[in-house]
Amino acid sequence: MKKILFVTTALIATASVAAADVRLSGYGRFGLDYNDANDRNVNGVSKTTITSRLRLQFDMSAETDGGVQFDARFRAQAESRDNNPGTAVFNGARFGVVYNGVRVNVGNIIGAVENMPGLYLETRTAGIGIDGAGFVSVVGNVNNEYFNWDAYSSAGSGANGVEVLYSANGFTGHLSYSTDNDSTVNPGVPNGNAGGPDRIGVMLAYSWNDFTVAAAHQSSDIMWEDKTLVSFAWDGGQYGARIAYADNDGIDKLGIYGNVDIGAASNLLLFWTDEDAVSATDVAAGRNDNRDAIAGSNQQEGSSYGIHYSYDLGGGASLEAGYRRASNDNDTFQVGAYFSF
Amino acid sequence: MKKILFVTTALIATASVAAADVRLSGYGRFGLDYNDANDRNVNGVSKTTITSRLRLQFDMSAETDGGVQFDARFRAQAESRDNNPGTAVFNGARFGVVYNGVRVNVGNIIGAVENMPGLYLETRTAGIGIDGAGFVSVVGNVNNEYFNWDAYSSAGSGANGVEVLYSANGFTGHLSYSTDNDSTVNPGVPNGNAGGPDRIGVMLAYSWNDFTVAAAHQSSDIMWEDKTLVSFAWDGGQYGARIAYADNDGIDKLGIYGNVDIGAASNLLLFWTDEDAVSATDVAAGRNDNRDAIAGSNQQEGSSYGIHYSYDLGGGASLEAGYRRASNDNDTFQVGAYFSF
Amino acid sequence: MKKILFVTTALIATASVAAADVRLSGYGRFGLDYNDANDRNVNGVSKTTITSRLRLQFDMSAETDGGVQFDARFRAQAESRDNNPGTAVFNGARFGVVYNGVRVNVGNIIGAVENMPGLYLETRTAGIGIDGAGFVSVVGNVNNEYFNWDAYSSAGSGANGVEVLYSANGFTGHLSYSTDNDSTVNPGVPNGNAGGPDRIGVMLAYSWNDFTVAAAHQSSDIMWEDKTLVSFAWDGGQYGARIAYADNDGIDKLGIYGNVDIGAASNLLLFWTDEDAVSATDVAAGRNDNRDAIAGSNQQEGSSYGIHYSYDLGGGASLEAGYRRASNDNDTFQVGAYFSF
Repeated sequence: MKKILFVTTALIATASVAAADVRLSGYGRFGLDYNDANDRNVNGVSKTTITSRLRLQFDMSAETDGGVQFDARFRAQAESRDNNPGTAVFNGARFGVVYNGVRVNVGNIIGAVENMPGLYLETRTAGIGIDGAGFVSVVGNVNNEYFNWDAYSSAGSGANGVEVLYSANGFTGHLSYSTDNDSTVNPGVPNGNAGGPDRIGVMLAYSWNDFTVAAAHQSSDIMWEDKTLVSFAWDGGQYGARIAYADNDGIDKLGIYGNVDIGAASNLLLFWTDEDAVSATDVAAGRNDNRDAIAGSNQQEGSSYGIHYSYDLGGGASLEAGYRRASNDNDTFQVGAYFSF
Repeated sequence: MKKILFVTTALIATASVAAADVRLSGYGRFGLDYNDANDRNVNGVSKTTITSRLRLQFDMSAETDGGVQFDARFRAQAESRDNNPGTAVFNGARFGVVYNGVRVNVGNIIGAVENMPGLYLETRTAGIGIDGAGFVSVVGNVNNEYFNWDAYSSAGSGANGVEVLYSANGFTGHLSYSTDNDSTVNPGVPNGNAGGPDRIGVMLAYSWNDFTVAAAHQSSDIMWEDKTLVSFAWDGGQYGARIAYADNDGIDKLGIYGNVDIGAASNLLLFWTDEDAVSATDVAAGRNDNRDAIAGSNQQEGSSYGIHYSYDLGGGASLEAGYRRASNDNDTFQVGAYFSF
Repeated sequence: MKKILFVTTALIATASVAAADVRLSGYGRFGLDYNDANDRNVNGVSKTTITSRLRLQFDMSAETDGGVQFDARFRAQAESRDNNPGTAVFNGARFGVVYNGVRVNVGNIIGAVENMPGLYLETRTAGIGIDGAGFVSVVGNVNNEYFNWDAYSSAGSGANGVEVLYSANGFTGHLSYSTDNDSTVNPGVPNGNAGGPDRIGVMLAYSWNDFTVAAAHQSSDIMWEDKTLVSFAWDGGQYGARIAYADNDGIDKLGIYGNVDIGAASNLLLFWTDEDAVSATDVAAGRNDNRDAIAGSNQQEGSSYGIHYSYDLGGGASLEAGYRRASNDNDTFQVGAYFSF
């Protein structure tokens, strides 16, 4: 009694343009994660555990007689990390209106910083290994303040913001805004930011020939969240290289990235990043250093590096393996399978 | 790797009758809500916030050799109101059996009162604006006892009841029953209603030419829930008018509604309601008045009114805007987009 | 705006082999449950309540150029029992790789014991009535330690294990392993099992002509979970018979089962089981007897029996009715409808 929802490309092509539809897509990835920060006798988690994610994405849309597209998206996603498996949950919805190359999104927005080309690794997981391995390669991630910018949330409700995107002739511009009225509001506080951060993000990118240059900035009323990022990437076919840099509210981080196709199905990627310490001026000014505040954590300033290998099996499936050493000396190695549908 | 689930009408027509299937449909709506009851410095919510909903409905069915249809439905829905965004959640399931015009439902039932024609506004949201704006136009909603009848729950488990519906020749009859065995049961209480309300609902409606007349009644063992509602509607094509009245356990509410098509794509709707106070007899008898019991709330007796404008964009999409003043002097204005798929 | 996801068999047959797809299927079942253990004046639950389940299963897959299949599954399921209705929830994901008759699963695994042929009843619900009625017929369920083996979880995250299955020429072999690192870990405990049970399961089955013989074993580091099960079944078309036996960590349980087709659409099934008491040696050794430990519960050792009737309506729908008496003298009778899609 099973229904096949997959309809071949030929059928899609001959069908009249759909005024309204629901599309399902997604991916599964699963494998083994070795993480030397785990110890079954210390934190109750074995050093080697299953890491997995199953994502099913629902894309819904309608198109007006005038060619304006309305769309919306949410995901159902199940994850297991550190032998802590979860049931699948939906995230918050993102709504969009598209017309003449301009897209306006509302709700669980992408975010201008998040959408900057050259922010994430050129791998299927956008990081090292099978689950990204903490995304230490990202120049916006410093000082135990990871992902402190507006970004599409895959398991939560997201930023509940608004954004405008425009793309034309290799140029992309992106402006995003959110105000986080969370539940910890302090009644009577005489300012507009009682509930949480207000964030404004802007991103500009331009691609020509094999090159892409991009810059992004976020302004926030929360400490450590003002940041400026730039990237420059070259995709020469068999070879690719990229450099990225961010000033994260005074903490610089630089990343260098390279990847090469080997034979018909393999790709090998390497990265190296260097993160500055919190400046003495900031510390003297009472701006806390999250890395020191977390008991037992090592300083994160310094170098991280990693290597990732991918083997394409065809049909949307691949084998992925990666090792990385974070600046706090944490080692992880992951290997597994990734398939999309 | 995306799959298009939309299959054109032509394909449906030529396909053999499906003995079993799963259908997906739904809608998205999003916009801005101005509500003068909010104040970021008082309750932490800005006066103007995003209001949105994304609903994806799953309709599943099978048909026996003898032509009996079994069906079931649940929804996944994400909502954001007052800048409090949520992830999508499923509701409870409704099961149905249909044969010869008779439908029996079990579980998250529609409810006889809820199903009465002429209860809700003739708008896409069934209320004013983009999210209904509190549905003050409904004559069954009085005395801060809103929606105190059995109704299909879009985000909860529902009434867990049973109902029978019959339609033929313009006539519709509907009988519903539920018993709410909630978790606050009082062991040893020697009656059958320890856990929550038992509700019986009945609804009769008849349509002829451009007219529809309907009446509904709910009997409950909980205060304020016995109610009788009637409606009379005329749909004359370009113009429509309706009157509705309810006796809500002694509290009368009257509503008058009118709408007009303007040009090819616009519709304008107006409503006015008047709600009586709780009678002195009831108050003397110790029947509490919820409106007074809520600290700081204004009396709700008196008049509400509102206006709604809709512009059809084609392809299932429209722009919706509406203002309403509730009887407690609360003003809301909403504008946004609505699209179905 | 509804989409029909059902695609006829003919279309499936002519479509090219899908490299990646999403399939939806499931079932609904609903009916009445009479359970003499309930009493609205005692535990707040009426003796007769609605019991229902709506299951929608998502099967996602991709196939490599080399013919290796990757797949994944989760379910959304809504249930109501004892007038306690719930909203639908997802379960945890299971990932699989299939090649040349060998399947490796990761995550929410099936489990070797759970997969043993001859463990469950030959009914649509795998038990008596419309919701299984507690599955007292299963020889692995003893001593208030029901379902204490690794099994696919329909509403939870599951065992987060790994398993290998192989089938060829009527033979099936199944090996499963899980380690439950739950959150109750005791830091510093110098053994590998601080967080929960490690379970290893093995199952072997062989079918020839009308016969199937199967055996399974689970080894665990938790009390009452070491168990060995065997079954022998004959399916002679109109008639079927089965015998099953399990040693549940010292507690024997035997079951005898028979069913017969009556006419073109009916089937009648009978079962009888007998469960031994916890041995005096075990009790003397301080191994607790859960049956005595639960206040007010009757001893469960002794006989259970039941009868089930099914009437096929065609199109995937049927009527199901069943009565069973458990060894603790609990009586249940259920009747309802079941349809798949």
